[in-house]
Amino acid sequence: MPDALSLTFSALADPTRRAILARLASGEAVVKDLAEPFAMSSPAVSKHLRVLERAGLVEKGRDAQWRPRRLIVRPLAEADDWLQAYRPLWEARFDRLDAVLRRIKPAAQKAARPSGGAKPAAVKRKSP
Amino acid sequence: MPDALSLTFSALADPTRRAILARLASGEAVVKDLAEPFAMSSPAVSKHLRVLERAGLVEKGRDAQWRPRRLIVRPLAEADDWLQAYRPLWEARFDRLDAVLRRIKPAAQKAARPSGGAKPAAVKRKSP
Repeated sequence: MPDALSLTFSALADPTRRAILARLASGEAVVKDLAEPFAMSSPAVSKHLRVLERAGLVEKGRDAQWRPRRLIVRPLAEADDWLQAYRPLWEARFDRLDAVLRRIKPAAQKAARPSGGAKPAAVKRKSP
Repeated sequence: MPDALSLTFSALADPTRRAILARLASGEAVVKDLAEPFAMSSPAVSKHLRVLERAGLVEKGRDAQWRPRRLIVRPLAEADDWLQAYRPLWEARFDRLDAVLRRIKPAAQKAARPSGGAKPAAVKRKSP
């Protein structure tokens, strides 16, 4: 049995399963409702739902007859926790890129308009 | 060929691959260095590296002889972007849980110490 985080990432590694989660984020749904927008058979959707249930991302609701499925967000929060450790790395990278853009932009504009004179446009940047 | 986000999540669905990324987050490393802490053979590590390279999470450095690998954070930033859409859901859930805890905690403390008198400990909570 893989660890919980691996099960979560594995369940997310499919566009149909991500679309099912997006649909469930707006409320419970039965298999038939989930199958419709994807033009998929109910068994095909059920197969995806089993992967999501195994990862703890989806659970069956209380109505025994209709078995509506609902989203469980905790595994997503745990995946997010894992990714957060890397956030400083990509933020640092974007900041560096931003610094490079600020350095090269006036030079690039000068090259494009050798007669000069126009004020360089302000470079948009996120607050630090 | 799966979409980029599916490749990323699939590559993250393994604890050894996540550990390799964690190691590369602190700097470039050659296959031998990556194999050591996991007590894995170089071919086994190379296999994991190929999955990570296919997902664009790792690339080979410039030194042709040693082929050091380095981390590419962009796919992690894109996975984080996808997860961010769900953040309000789990934050709302934690806030609700927090509200429940604040309601039940004084009652629980009263039940545990029927003689009463002690001031209830402050309930820790994140800023809203």
